[in-house]
Amino acid sequence: MALSKPTVVDIHTHMYTPSYIKLLQGRSAIPLVRQFAQAPEPRLVLFESESRALAEALRDPSSAAKTVGRALTPDYTSLQHKMSFMDAHGIDISVVSPANPWLDFIAADEAGQVAQDVNTEMADMCEQQPGRLYFFGVLPLRATLETVMSSVQHLQGLQPCRGVIMGTNGMGNGMDDKKLLPVFEALAASQLTLFLHPHQGLPQALGSSSGGADYGHVLPLALGFPFETTIGVTRMYLSGVFDAVRNLRLILAHSGGTLPFLAGRIESCIQHDAELARAAKGGKERRSVWNVLREQIYLDALVYSDVGVAAAIGASGADRLMFGSDHPFFPPLAGMDTDGMWPSVSINATAVTKAVGEGTPEAKAIMGANAIKILGLEQK
Amino acid sequence: MALSKPTVVDIHTHMYTPSYIKLLQGRSAIPLVRQFAQAPEPRLVLFESESRALAEALRDPSSAAKTVGRALTPDYTSLQHKMSFMDAHGIDISVVSPANPWLDFIAADEAGQVAQDVNTEMADMCEQQPGRLYFFGVLPLRATLETVMSSVQHLQGLQPCRGVIMGTNGMGNGMDDKKLLPVFEALAASQLTLFLHPHQGLPQALGSSSGGADYGHVLPLALGFPFETTIGVTRMYLSGVFDAVRNLRLILAHSGGTLPFLAGRIESCIQHDAELARAAKGGKERRSVWNVLREQIYLDALVYSDVGVAAAIGASGADRLMFGSDHPFFPPLAGMDTDGMWPSVSINATAVTKAVGEGTPEAKAIMGANAIKILGLEQK
Repeated sequence: MALSKPTVVDIHTHMYTPSYIKLLQGRSAIPLVRQFAQAPEPRLVLFESESRALAEALRDPSSAAKTVGRALTPDYTSLQHKMSFMDAHGIDISVVSPANPWLDFIAADEAGQVAQDVNTEMADMCEQQPGRLYFFGVLPLRATLETVMSSVQHLQGLQPCRGVIMGTNGMGNGMDDKKLLPVFEALAASQLTLFLHPHQGLPQALGSSSGGADYGHVLPLALGFPFETTIGVTRMYLSGVFDAVRNLRLILAHSGGTLPFLAGRIESCIQHDAELARAAKGGKERRSVWNVLREQIYLDALVYSDVGVAAAIGASGADRLMFGSDHPFFPPLAGMDTDGMWPSVSINATAVTKAVGEGTPEAKAIMGANAIKILGLEQK
Repeated sequence: MALSKPTVVDIHTHMYTPSYIKLLQGRSAIPLVRQFAQAPEPRLVLFESESRALAEALRDPSSAAKTVGRALTPDYTSLQHKMSFMDAHGIDISVVSPANPWLDFIAADEAGQVAQDVNTEMADMCEQQPGRLYFFGVLPLRATLETVMSSVQHLQGLQPCRGVIMGTNGMGNGMDDKKLLPVFEALAASQLTLFLHPHQGLPQALGSSSGGADYGHVLPLALGFPFETTIGVTRMYLSGVFDAVRNLRLILAHSGGTLPFLAGRIESCIQHDAELARAAKGGKERRSVWNVLREQIYLDALVYSDVGVAAAIGASGADRLMFGSDHPFFPPLAGMDTDGMWPSVSINATAVTKAVGEGTPEAKAIMGANAIKILGLEQK
């Protein structure tokens, strides 16, 4: 009798739906999609920091069109490509989320309809692959609270939906915005998990080099993204969100940004701050950052090293980590010797193996079993 | 025969010298020291983010003088207090450094003299406690290169000097400023170790709460400081400093900021960036961030958790970590049950023990033996 292969679940994997791409194609400000005659694929420009490169491409497409933003390949939009990627990498189930910047830039009066369209498309796509695809939806966070609440209700009725993905801006004022509380409460009551994901990166001044050297996306993406997530969750913690909505479940992108490494420093800073200590004394006993990490926070295992995976386990436990690939971002470069595998997948899978051993219960848990349990996935 | 207690060395411990305090007392802009009749100790105001609180204290000292900045207690300035602290905490040797913001704000034509004064005072102080005190000096980074180089030469002649402490601004343009290269070369040639330490924290917009809530120093200090260090060292790496000055030795404050946790993500971002990959191909083979961590970077063990210590060990090795206390910052709050010990010390010492076991060779190395070897300390 052959032993069945442990199930592999990818909880950090993105797509853009058809209506969203159409919306981006119609825009003249970032984020946008623009087809240049000089580039084989349309270019997807997501970040404000790419505005200079975009202006250059619009001025002189022959030199700049091929490098602005990123190529919008079918990997970002095609269900077939997602399934091929999963098959090629031995991924049984994906919990797909719309990629950044979600609906953060969409005006109040349009956002509700866009959310409904995107979420319906996500659900339809998942229903074409029952048991293999689930999704995190999006919320129209710039719209009225009533509209946001309608979206939560809509998502609750979509069978493959397991939560929502949200940027750290929240409704525009960060994750400690009191206006978010009813949204968090509605998500918790609907058993929809909140997936907190970065988009802003670093302020321009910190994210570029001194002497005009080009470090590519390293400073804003490699550092800015995890910093942003850490600031977002720390603001939530400090503002008392986790106590206010005790059954809110939060997944942090990129293994918590840097929270596992900095939780001790955050704790010490709070303990040594007279004002915060006084505030804590006034209320009931403060749950430490570590407690919240072990009671309400889940982490993806997308940190590209065994050192990071081990720290994430140390912070929140091996039963709270869930494998992720970040597909279709970070595609292999032309000329990479990848053997058909995306290094972004193999690096992260190897990191898990190195941290907890191959085929161990912890490895099986992190690679799939945790997600099945935590997100209530049913394999068909 | 009694077993001799392993030597404990504190490599992250600060002081302000008399001439520096006098200089701060004469200033009307931050950083400054100001004595208010309404506060028992002079107030030390270090951060631009404290400017509103300072204005308030100047306007209405009766309400705000006791809370602006921090109390400038003798712990920041008195040799006797430093020695008492060391004795009370079983610290045999301290490698003391001037605290931030060093000479970063001092005009070009004055900085050389201030550096000479501060460094001479540091050396004199150490010579009063031979074998128990060593120091990291400061450089007049806003002055001419010639003046900076004279300071390096001066420090090289001061027997207890083991390196220099530097903020991430460098000469004003960050750590990847090509103008710093001759300074790095001079330090390396003089076997002076560079201690990279944050001061800027987070930009105001990221470092404050959304709704006007007061999170104290948690966002700028607990998060901003380690983020700043990580950006500084990553810029150094990306600009090729470590290859250009192969014998430069760098100590990173706060266990590398977040570098141990993010090194994998940085590596992956570089590997997946077409431009950077092309640049790397053009030159000789790139040493990975991990290699540089294990060949040129040392970390203090000041991360307030065993999770952090374990990650730091995973990144650079147990032979490259050195205990630190951050004294006299983060003093115990009034009413803390500390048993005479500063929690900032006991938290960090316990983190080491939890990470590597009590009395193990690794614990002895991190608590003292590494520093003795790496910095060439002689206990008398």
